[in-house]
Amino acid sequence: MKKLKILLVIADGLGDRKVEALGGQTPLQKANKANIDSLLRSSLVGLMDPIGPGVVPGSDTSHLAIFGLDPRKYYKGRGSFEALGAGATLNEGDVAFRGNFATVDNDLRVVDRRAGRKIEEADDLVKELNSKIDEVQGVKVRFYHGTEHRVSLVLSGDNLSDKVSDTDPHEIGKRVLHSEPLDGSLNSKRTAQIVNDLTKRMFEVLSKSKFNEKRESEGLPPANIILLRGASVHTELPKLKDYTQLSSAAVSATALIKGVCKSIGMEVITPPGATGGIDTDYIAKADAAANLLKDHDLVFLHIKATDAASHDGKALEKVKAIEMIDKAIGKVLDTFGSDIILLFTGDHSTPVELKEHSGDPVPVLLYAPVNIAPDSVNSFDEISVRKGSLKIVGLNIIDLLLNYSNRASKYGA
Amino acid sequence: MKKLKILLVIADGLGDRKVEALGGQTPLQKANKANIDSLLRSSLVGLMDPIGPGVVPGSDTSHLAIFGLDPRKYYKGRGSFEALGAGATLNEGDVAFRGNFATVDNDLRVVDRRAGRKIEEADDLVKELNSKIDEVQGVKVRFYHGTEHRVSLVLSGDNLSDKVSDTDPHEIGKRVLHSEPLDGSLNSKRTAQIVNDLTKRMFEVLSKSKFNEKRESEGLPPANIILLRGASVHTELPKLKDYTQLSSAAVSATALIKGVCKSIGMEVITPPGATGGIDTDYIAKADAAANLLKDHDLVFLHIKATDAASHDGKALEKVKAIEMIDKAIGKVLDTFGSDIILLFTGDHSTPVELKEHSGDPVPVLLYAPVNIAPDSVNSFDEISVRKGSLKIVGLNIIDLLLNYSNRASKYGA
Repeated sequence: MKKLKILLVIADGLGDRKVEALGGQTPLQKANKANIDSLLRSSLVGLMDPIGPGVVPGSDTSHLAIFGLDPRKYYKGRGSFEALGAGATLNEGDVAFRGNFATVDNDLRVVDRRAGRKIEEADDLVKELNSKIDEVQGVKVRFYHGTEHRVSLVLSGDNLSDKVSDTDPHEIGKRVLHSEPLDGSLNSKRTAQIVNDLTKRMFEVLSKSKFNEKRESEGLPPANIILLRGASVHTELPKLKDYTQLSSAAVSATALIKGVCKSIGMEVITPPGATGGIDTDYIAKADAAANLLKDHDLVFLHIKATDAASHDGKALEKVKAIEMIDKAIGKVLDTFGSDIILLFTGDHSTPVELKEHSGDPVPVLLYAPVNIAPDSVNSFDEISVRKGSLKIVGLNIIDLLLNYSNRASKYGA
Repeated sequence: MKKLKILLVIADGLGDRKVEALGGQTPLQKANKANIDSLLRSSLVGLMDPIGPGVVPGSDTSHLAIFGLDPRKYYKGRGSFEALGAGATLNEGDVAFRGNFATVDNDLRVVDRRAGRKIEEADDLVKELNSKIDEVQGVKVRFYHGTEHRVSLVLSGDNLSDKVSDTDPHEIGKRVLHSEPLDGSLNSKRTAQIVNDLTKRMFEVLSKSKFNEKRESEGLPPANIILLRGASVHTELPKLKDYTQLSSAAVSATALIKGVCKSIGMEVITPPGATGGIDTDYIAKADAAANLLKDHDLVFLHIKATDAASHDGKALEKVKAIEMIDKAIGKVLDTFGSDIILLFTGDHSTPVELKEHSGDPVPVLLYAPVNIAPDSVNSFDEISVRKGSLKIVGLNIIDLLLNYSNRASKYGA
């Protein structure tokens, strides 16, 4: 039997509830999604609980599960995924922090937690930090710029711990916090001291930076500190290639997701125009995915726009994002329609009226151009798919993909 | 988003099969339950396997699962729950037994395993035992009266074990059994000796009791022994408040269930008129639940009547119990309808024709006054709910309650 290629499309935060602004329909019900609905003629559909019924997933834990790694065993926190997504190379034991460029006064009181958010000089400031602060107390220090005000910090050395508290006070007017050890270990005490020393040195370097001088001369708030949070220790994860034999690549513009993909050994592409927001270039992402399908077994296309619209409570934007995803899927199918299986789902629900992740199950569609008897469902949405045959959790997905692409190995004899 | 209160209603042994005496309907199909059915307009429904498909649950293991604690990890036997439910305070390592007041002859042969069952003097007899038997071999001894002939015994001290056999021969005409160690440990040997000594001392005290003299003068069988069974060691369980942040209270008249609730830190109320039988005062229990909802996040209303009717094989009594539960639910909803989510289910099935617990799945209804798209089901019964979207196990329930009451924490980022 011919091995088929696999296209996995995840619309972040796809699942929803009835939305008043949409006349009581869900965004999936409302959206014109002719390409997706046309796949129903040869698809299984149903509901997926990414982690388990009622459990509210983060995007990181959910993606781990969908890639076949139980987050309860493998998830160690967000920091190292963000750092990987921002371009870091991590080694076992490195401690990564998420950070914000922020504006503080001379007393280290927070004036702007994001230093204006759009910081043109962010790359330059990160470069300056890396050139002027190479190490603290013998520990190697590296900064990586994510998007806008976002920065990752990585500490590399022996005897480090991620059991240290944040320096981010999460509130304007409060002073930058001292990092404190969160357990009684010497490693935590040492790491907290390093973080506190580093905070002082960052302020010294950034306060004097010509890039901040320029910002102030333009009336912009200086990015004179990095507020740190969410320390996490990097541990190597199993590689998708090793546990599935699939060569794989991902198309994503979201640091967290890019980091998850890199951590399991996937090649990660962010094509020009892909933003991780509702203004992303869907067709550029579809083209990138189609291109990667030529020489990879599995291509993962991640679209953040649905989640971004949901967090902002913008129902119509979410509908539009789904319609653009439908076009993107159509584009890939035009090229590979009879040679790929396609799984389309979300990593969790983010109901637009809730504006937050929820534990509601997510619709899932598995299209396979093989002789499976399709489920008798004529629309892909939260309500219609309840009549479908899939009732799965995230951890089931890799096995389903391997099975319907004719790539699964027999378990037993 | 507003946090909603949670009402969890469990009708013990609710699930059933087609019943001949009901013209082939199940009790849920037969019952007039207008309030419950009216909730279907904003509910998810389906089937729950309390432990797993086909597994026959006890009420204790099932309730543990429903409260989010895997019984395979946490269940240590029924004795300590019964003792807690009868009013005991237990410490880690205490060994609790279930017991029956019984009538034996001078040769310790059982004449009546329940000493007539209704024992007016039971409280006095227990008081007398506690005053005359304070300790045996340095181990502290306490008796607690449950309902009717039921008594709990608690042993407190070092080096005790619950690996000892029952003294209850479970048969009339047989002699009270010697308790024997069930493993090779010294602690089991010692505990069995204590139980045997204690049995002699109970007989001495009870044989001479003026309360039994009175019973005999009235022609009633003396309650001159306590037959012991089901030793279980008390281990502290995680508290619901700690693992869910929910403040909680329970309304129940059943010692075993009260004990489970107390063991996870719930406040437990048994309003006057609540009996744990088919003669219970449903409205008193509904009022108590409504009252507790004012200052608790989660209120658990337990109704034993459905199970009691099932064990007695009384189909019409079960139908009536369901109709009374419907009224009780209606009463609470009149007050809190738009401010609570409600989950209604059973802890297991007890088919009336079987008269015993079974491993059949139990219908489950989750009503939430939020914009979930409801399942298209127009009756809440074993057959109709199969078209619903819930297909869950008991351990999923707490997560579902937290999700739909807007109280869940995100797992991951």
